[in-house]
Amino acid sequence: MRVLILGMDGYLGWPLALRLLARGHEVAGIDNLYTRKAVEEVGSASALPIPSPEERVHAVRDIMGKDLDFIIGDITKYSVLNKAIRKFKPDTVVHFAEQRSAPYSMIDVKHANFTMRNNLSGTLNLIYAVKKANPKVHVVKMGTMGEYGTPNFDIPESAFVDAQIGGKSDRIVVPKWAGSWYHWSKVHDTNNLLFANKVWGITTTDIMQGPVYGTRTKEITDDRLFTRFDFDGVWGTVFNRYCVESVLGMPLTQYGKGGQTRAFLSLEDSMESLRLLIENRPNDGEYRVVNQFTEVYSVRELALIAKEVASKNGMSVEIGEVDNPRVEANEHYYKPVHDILPALGLKSPTRNIRDEMGVILKDLQKHKSRLAEYKDAIMPEVRWKD
Amino acid sequence: MRVLILGMDGYLGWPLALRLLARGHEVAGIDNLYTRKAVEEVGSASALPIPSPEERVHAVRDIMGKDLDFIIGDITKYSVLNKAIRKFKPDTVVHFAEQRSAPYSMIDVKHANFTMRNNLSGTLNLIYAVKKANPKVHVVKMGTMGEYGTPNFDIPESAFVDAQIGGKSDRIVVPKWAGSWYHWSKVHDTNNLLFANKVWGITTTDIMQGPVYGTRTKEITDDRLFTRFDFDGVWGTVFNRYCVESVLGMPLTQYGKGGQTRAFLSLEDSMESLRLLIENRPNDGEYRVVNQFTEVYSVRELALIAKEVASKNGMSVEIGEVDNPRVEANEHYYKPVHDILPALGLKSPTRNIRDEMGVILKDLQKHKSRLAEYKDAIMPEVRWKD
Repeated sequence: MRVLILGMDGYLGWPLALRLLARGHEVAGIDNLYTRKAVEEVGSASALPIPSPEERVHAVRDIMGKDLDFIIGDITKYSVLNKAIRKFKPDTVVHFAEQRSAPYSMIDVKHANFTMRNNLSGTLNLIYAVKKANPKVHVVKMGTMGEYGTPNFDIPESAFVDAQIGGKSDRIVVPKWAGSWYHWSKVHDTNNLLFANKVWGITTTDIMQGPVYGTRTKEITDDRLFTRFDFDGVWGTVFNRYCVESVLGMPLTQYGKGGQTRAFLSLEDSMESLRLLIENRPNDGEYRVVNQFTEVYSVRELALIAKEVASKNGMSVEIGEVDNPRVEANEHYYKPVHDILPALGLKSPTRNIRDEMGVILKDLQKHKSRLAEYKDAIMPEVRWKD
Repeated sequence: MRVLILGMDGYLGWPLALRLLARGHEVAGIDNLYTRKAVEEVGSASALPIPSPEERVHAVRDIMGKDLDFIIGDITKYSVLNKAIRKFKPDTVVHFAEQRSAPYSMIDVKHANFTMRNNLSGTLNLIYAVKKANPKVHVVKMGTMGEYGTPNFDIPESAFVDAQIGGKSDRIVVPKWAGSWYHWSKVHDTNNLLFANKVWGITTTDIMQGPVYGTRTKEITDDRLFTRFDFDGVWGTVFNRYCVESVLGMPLTQYGKGGQTRAFLSLEDSMESLRLLIENRPNDGEYRVVNQFTEVYSVRELALIAKEVASKNGMSVEIGEVDNPRVEANEHYYKPVHDILPALGLKSPTRNIRDEMGVILKDLQKHKSRLAEYKDAIMPEVRWKD
């Protein structure tokens, strides 16, 4: 299969390229390297140093014996994306090329605008490029479980759901409530893709993924193949941040009381899920929505797990309680449906979060002085209410 | 009261400025004159010739004896909007500065991107400018009944609605289903404003308006005060287009069987509704959603009315059936709630559509040769499925 990955330089884009190459697929990717710059912008860096695009391609050649086409380009320029699709002729396009940080989107009006413009125009360009080149191309778009917020109903794996409103029945788009401009940009993209599906029949898998943790996948066996790993207050996700804090002996930055419940998965399980969805495409013209996660934890439970594993690894950490910078419910119902990936064969979770944290800590310890250098970037400084 | 109108040069912006001035309010407006250029771009023009911004300000001075501040500027540049708000210190900002044509947004990827970028960034800039300058400013945003599509439930006048989903109860954002990139951009803006209201308490009136028809309001008593009047396949709305077709003796371009039902109102009633909403602001921090219309017709009923009135005015027209260029339901349930405006005192409709059409025809007949010049732009050429 021929797979084009938009945003191939990112935390998920890179290991997905490796996974697909290992499976024998032909892979090309586009990235404008924006995340590298934007993480620098907030005074931080990837915990694990990552090679340049050229070095990445060489490493793949040396270690895996595979060829990888890495295009430096910005898909918000239609011509860039259109040219890549016409040249590479993908069967599947995986769309990761979105600004992916909620706090980054909330910094100020400039960052809010950037997030909306970047994310929406990338997706619109993808819709039109696929529609023109070959409407049978399978579009795999990374959304987020955060599009739903924390509803009182069970979160289905479908674009539409039956509802009763004021005594009448209707089939409605699954209700969303997002908690940042970033999350809203993803909701808007979901709506835009859904509209494109209805008008032009574009075959889509819309993945609603929970926060991912981890440094390793089956293919990341060499430091030259590492993917980026963010841990700062803007770009880091909660469990990865806890891991860095454990290594640095800092209190774990739990936001508020930690009752916020989310659906998580390891990097390895994220890759396995993506592989399954790419290799098992939906019917032509179908809009498939998948909730991609393996475990549900509250942020507090995660902190307790992190504290326990850190302690077993000889690191003593406390759970700190940081004023929650976000506007979100502290205690709530949370039940996402999770049928599609297990039906495709995902044994979930394939990795135990405690074991996985041991692996992460080992990887991070080798870069402890690097982490210490960016320590100041860990506390959340972007506050929603400001 | 001090009212700042974004998009003051437009079909609604201009008569609203006149209405508010007549009511004794202080009015300033911003416009980048984009609609003038974009209508030219599709080979058309306003049926009624409209003066330049300078001439408009002079006409207001001469005829009404009022001062009007008309700023030529683009609110997608944050500094332009921020400066205007800090300088003018409005109590209310009315936001009409959006690309407002569904077919225009569907022309191609460039127009899709422009519509999203222009509309979303204007609204984001407004949110941030108000939040910084004075969060008590009342934001009045023009949305469209088209955000809802044609649901099976009664369309409420609220941002949220109680729903049962899979046996569970929740309060959800009122479901939307839009039929073009333009309509989706309005849905996205509604969601963005709603989020801004929840986080920063911005006081908002979100108006869901039906298509407007008419050339006159109480203040438009002189040709120098005319507002623009679009009738082409891209910029014209259905009843205004039927009026021009009647004058030209062309068959009325009814899209498909004409079963599409929508909520309409006259230009005068639109102005009266806006005045009532501006003079009766919601509570501080409230998000008020208003369905703004006075009558509900199918597109077929409108064609029959137009044919009847045209005939009484000595114009013989046939109802033509044009392939519907859009993707929309042809026959459907349609029941929007309409309580808020009548409770504020709107006697609806204040104008009878048949009488109003007589007035429109009279205004248009004076410009018959001008209309004939742009005749070729009337047939719909932008097809959703293309």
